Amino acid sequence: MRILILGGDGYLGWPQSLYLSSKGHDVTIFDNLARRHFDLERGFNSLIPIQTLHERVAAWKEVSGRQIQVRIGDTTDYDVLASVFQETQPEAVVDFAEQRSAPYSMIDRKHAVFTQTNNVVGTLNVLYAIKEFAPTCHLVKLGTMGEYGTPNIDIEEGFIEIHHKGRSDVLPFPKQPGSFYHLSKVHDSHNIMFCCKIWGISATDLNQGIVYGVETDETVQDARLATRFDYDQIYGTALNRFCVQAAMEYPLSVYGSGQQTRGYINLRDTIRCIELAIISPPHAGEYRVFNQITEQFSLVDLAEMVAWKSKQLGIETHVEHLPNPRIEAEQHYFHATHTGLLELGLQPHLLNEAVIGSLIGLAMQHRQYIERNLILPTVNWRHTTNEVS
Amino acid sequence: MRILILGGDGYLGWPQSLYLSSKGHDVTIFDNLARRHFDLERGFNSLIPIQTLHERVAAWKEVSGRQIQVRIGDTTDYDVLASVFQETQPEAVVDFAEQRSAPYSMIDRKHAVFTQTNNVVGTLNVLYAIKEFAPTCHLVKLGTMGEYGTPNIDIEEGFIEIHHKGRSDVLPFPKQPGSFYHLSKVHDSHNIMFCCKIWGISATDLNQGIVYGVETDETVQDARLATRFDYDQIYGTALNRFCVQAAMEYPLSVYGSGQQTRGYINLRDTIRCIELAIISPPHAGEYRVFNQITEQFSLVDLAEMVAWKSKQLGIETHVEHLPNPRIEAEQHYFHATHTGLLELGLQPHLLNEAVIGSLIGLAMQHRQYIERNLILPTVNWRHTTNEVS
Repeated sequence: MRILILGGDGYLGWPQSLYLSSKGHDVTIFDNLARRHFDLERGFNSLIPIQTLHERVAAWKEVSGRQIQVRIGDTTDYDVLASVFQETQPEAVVDFAEQRSAPYSMIDRKHAVFTQTNNVVGTLNVLYAIKEFAPTCHLVKLGTMGEYGTPNIDIEEGFIEIHHKGRSDVLPFPKQPGSFYHLSKVHDSHNIMFCCKIWGISATDLNQGIVYGVETDETVQDARLATRFDYDQIYGTALNRFCVQAAMEYPLSVYGSGQQTRGYINLRDTIRCIELAIISPPHAGEYRVFNQITEQFSLVDLAEMVAWKSKQLGIETHVEHLPNPRIEAEQHYFHATHTGLLELGLQPHLLNEAVIGSLIGLAMQHRQYIERNLILPTVNWRHTTNEVS
Repeated sequence: MRILILGGDGYLGWPQSLYLSSKGHDVTIFDNLARRHFDLERGFNSLIPIQTLHERVAAWKEVSGRQIQVRIGDTTDYDVLASVFQETQPEAVVDFAEQRSAPYSMIDRKHAVFTQTNNVVGTLNVLYAIKEFAPTCHLVKLGTMGEYGTPNIDIEEGFIEIHHKGRSDVLPFPKQPGSFYHLSKVHDSHNIMFCCKIWGISATDLNQGIVYGVETDETVQDARLATRFDYDQIYGTALNRFCVQAAMEYPLSVYGSGQQTRGYINLRDTIRCIELAIISPPHAGEYRVFNQITEQFSLVDLAEMVAWKSKQLGIETHVEHLPNPRIEAEQHYFHATHTGLLELGLQPHLLNEAVIGSLIGLAMQHRQYIERNLILPTVNWRHTTNEVS
């Protein structure tokens, strides 16, 4: 199948591209290299060294014999995006091409406005490009479980049947996102739903949980095929930060009480979910939503798992609570339905001791590159301007 | 009270500014004159001649002795917006400063992207300006009933109590907007709700129905104080178009079956609602939503009311059905709660024969300016590019 991967140079986009290429699909990556620019802007870097996009693609050709096409460009530049749609005639487009950090979007007004305009305009352009140049192309869009917030009822997959004053309807699940980034994804979801309705576009919106892991069957074939490992306060997820802190024998820093509970998914499952969505597309005009998670944990659950595994490995660490820089419920109900992708055939890889041990091991292996001052949070949701060191 | 009116030169912003000034408030208008630019772009004009903003303000000074301050600028230009907040230290800000036409947003990709970025970034900037320069200032934001779409349950005021799988919560009412413009207002609503939560901003989001009427106690005092009367396919509402068609003895053009039902409100009630919101503000951090309508009609109801009144006035016309250029349900349930503003003291002016007669009279009085080729729809929701004559 001809598949266009927008943002194919990022943490998820790259292993996704490798995986789909390995399955024999004709893969084109479209990327503006923004993620690398954000690193430069903030003085961060992936803990595991990564190659340039062109080096990666050449290495994949060498290792697998398969060619991934590359186009450098920005989804907010419609002329370039349109030409790529016209050239590649994609049957599916996977859209990872968004600014994806909540703390980044909360740094200050400019970062908030950038995140919303970049993400919303990029997705609007993708929708127009599909309608104008590839109307049967299936849009696979990365959303986030963070769109839902933490309602006091079960979270369903995109829609909920509501009974009210003697009548009923199936309506979009109400959204309570918790950052300007998460808001941008809610805006996208509404825009996509509308375009499916008016133009008959087929779309799958994957409300993804927090992804962990860096290894896939493809990335492990050659060090040059590695994907990112982010541990900094802006792009690093809590689990990565805990593993890096463990590798340094620092305390594991939990924001607030740590009872905040979220959905999680292994990188291997994420790339499989997207393949499943691609090979079983929705019908024309359908806006389909899946919750792309396999299990749920609280922050403290994760920190304690890392602390326990560290102890086994002979590492001294402990869990430490920091004042929460975010504004979010710390005691809340959380139960999210996630049966859609299981029904399509997903067989989950769950978070276990071996996975955590492997992440701590990777952090120890690269510990000479760890910069401690990147880890602790300096972006506070209460402020309109934050100094990021 | 010190009140800043963003978009105070528009159809609603102008009579709102006059009304609040007449009540003794210290009013500053901030406007980028975009609405007049859209007229120039499309070759349209208000049927009732309107003066420039500076002439209007001078006339009001002459008539009432009261001074309205004027600042020309764009809400998407944060430096200018911030300086106005710093200078005026508003206690309430009323935000009309958005591109407000659904057909305009559906012309093509550029108009869709413009509408969403202009509206969303403008409102984000207003939120930051409040937090940074006037943190206790009450934001009164104009939303639209079109955010809700036409669910098969009663529409509540912003929030709905949902019972689901044995649990319950009060959650944002699900939104199903029907154009890129309506979507922009949904995006705004989510952004505002979030800023109230994280920064303690007080906001009233007024989901306004379709406003009709051009006369208020202030505008009728001098012809130079008139507000706009739009009848073109882009900015004109159905009722205005019907009245203009009647004045020309043309058929009254209803889109599709005409069973599409919406909430309506008289201009006099709109300006009173906003005053009521201002004098009874929400508490710090509260995101309050009212449905700003007083009654509901189907398109055919309106057309038949105009046809009946025309007949009384000796005018020959009849109702004609056109293919619907929009994509919307033509048979649907519609019942919207609208008690919040009544509880604050609103006494509605309902749509009656006298109001319709007055609108037809105004159209007849200015019939020499009517351009027939502006009335019929050329923007079709099914197309990504529409030729607007």
